[in-house]
Amino acid sequence: MTKGPSADPGVIDLLGLLAYAELGSFFRLADDAGLAPSLRGKGQLAALAAAEQAHYQTLRDRLEELGVVPEEAMEPFVAPLDAWHERTEAQSWLESLVKTYVGDGIAGDFYRKVAALADEETAALVEGVLAETGRAEFVSGAVRAAVAEDPRLAGRLSLWARRLVGEALSQAQHVAVARPRLAALLAEDPQGSAGATALGDLAAVSRMFASLTDRHKARLDAMGLSA
Amino acid sequence: MTKGPSADPGVIDLLGLLAYAELGSFFRLADDAGLAPSLRGKGQLAALAAAEQAHYQTLRDRLEELGVVPEEAMEPFVAPLDAWHERTEAQSWLESLVKTYVGDGIAGDFYRKVAALADEETAALVEGVLAETGRAEFVSGAVRAAVAEDPRLAGRLSLWARRLVGEALSQAQHVAVARPRLAALLAEDPQGSAGATALGDLAAVSRMFASLTDRHKARLDAMGLSA
Repeated sequence: MTKGPSADPGVIDLLGLLAYAELGSFFRLADDAGLAPSLRGKGQLAALAAAEQAHYQTLRDRLEELGVVPEEAMEPFVAPLDAWHERTEAQSWLESLVKTYVGDGIAGDFYRKVAALADEETAALVEGVLAETGRAEFVSGAVRAAVAEDPRLAGRLSLWARRLVGEALSQAQHVAVARPRLAALLAEDPQGSAGATALGDLAAVSRMFASLTDRHKARLDAMGLSA
Repeated sequence: MTKGPSADPGVIDLLGLLAYAELGSFFRLADDAGLAPSLRGKGQLAALAAAEQAHYQTLRDRLEELGVVPEEAMEPFVAPLDAWHERTEAQSWLESLVKTYVGDGIAGDFYRKVAALADEETAALVEGVLAETGRAEFVSGAVRAAVAEDPRLAGRLSLWARRLVGEALSQAQHVAVARPRLAALLAEDPQGSAGATALGDLAAVSRMFASLTDRHKARLDAMGLSA
């Protein structure tokens, strides 16, 4: 069965959320440049930021094609995402790398949701973004190497990662209350029965959080950190 | 006559200068995002910044191909370019646009120098960067429209543009003293006799400044500002 263009407001919400998340990551990475240990690191950070900008552009263009004003789709997510960035300002290069890996990982989970739920063209586009995995491996590798060299870093960075995900869940809680349709969508198992979750279902929100947390643990492992 | 790869230290200097200028513009544009009047403007600014990052990457890759450590080629220009940005921090969206136009214009003059002096592959690459003129016209158009709507802006922004170029010349003066070969290269007329300028020739530096200032006037006209 061919799906039509994604008119589902939950999918539009997801695309708007991801678009603003990418734009926010772009500015955050550029801001963190002062933490780079070298001119070379600064340049690498600029490249990471430019990749986020390209993703933002892809999502923004797709929203426009779907007949939506992109800025209106992003608007509900500006305050929670800005709040997350304000509450989790990296104080060191390694903190910035961990934040990039954790943030991109959560975004990846959301991209996979879009791929499962959206129309075929949107899904293909999102899979293209997801295929760019090389850089995530570079980031986790850099953190792992730093921890291997100085094991005392593991505890501090693990705490930092916990704070990152804790603040994310706290912002997600606000979003889930304000956008029940989105929360229900995120909680659905695309392979399972879509009807199993009701709008604003609190159990659904909890399931979404649980699966977010599970995948977060896997990402901590990849960086040599503990939950 | 086919030119070999650019081993000329003056050309390497120029490529290093432009690479760091693009990287600096990238971070500066991202910093100025807070001045954007809307979420849409913020996104446009991110796109401008990403274009600067792409130019940086092109130049960095070319330096590497020429057998140079890119960061070493950029190093002499970090302090003067950072100083320029610190002394000319935009306080408004329009100031940021004028700075983008003036800065990109000066960079364009330097790119044309590279195109005239470097080996063919480097020249072709630089001409590719120069071909992206659409965005400069968008920026000058936006400033012109704002000045047409509120003519009182013209005086303030003209002063701002004068300060931008004044500070640029003051930094260029430092660079010219520290890198006489580069100053001589910049002062040369590629159609004229290259031997006419001696290393560190003060007259050559003055000629370079005069030609920079002439082209700056043309750019002010394009924005509806006066010199």
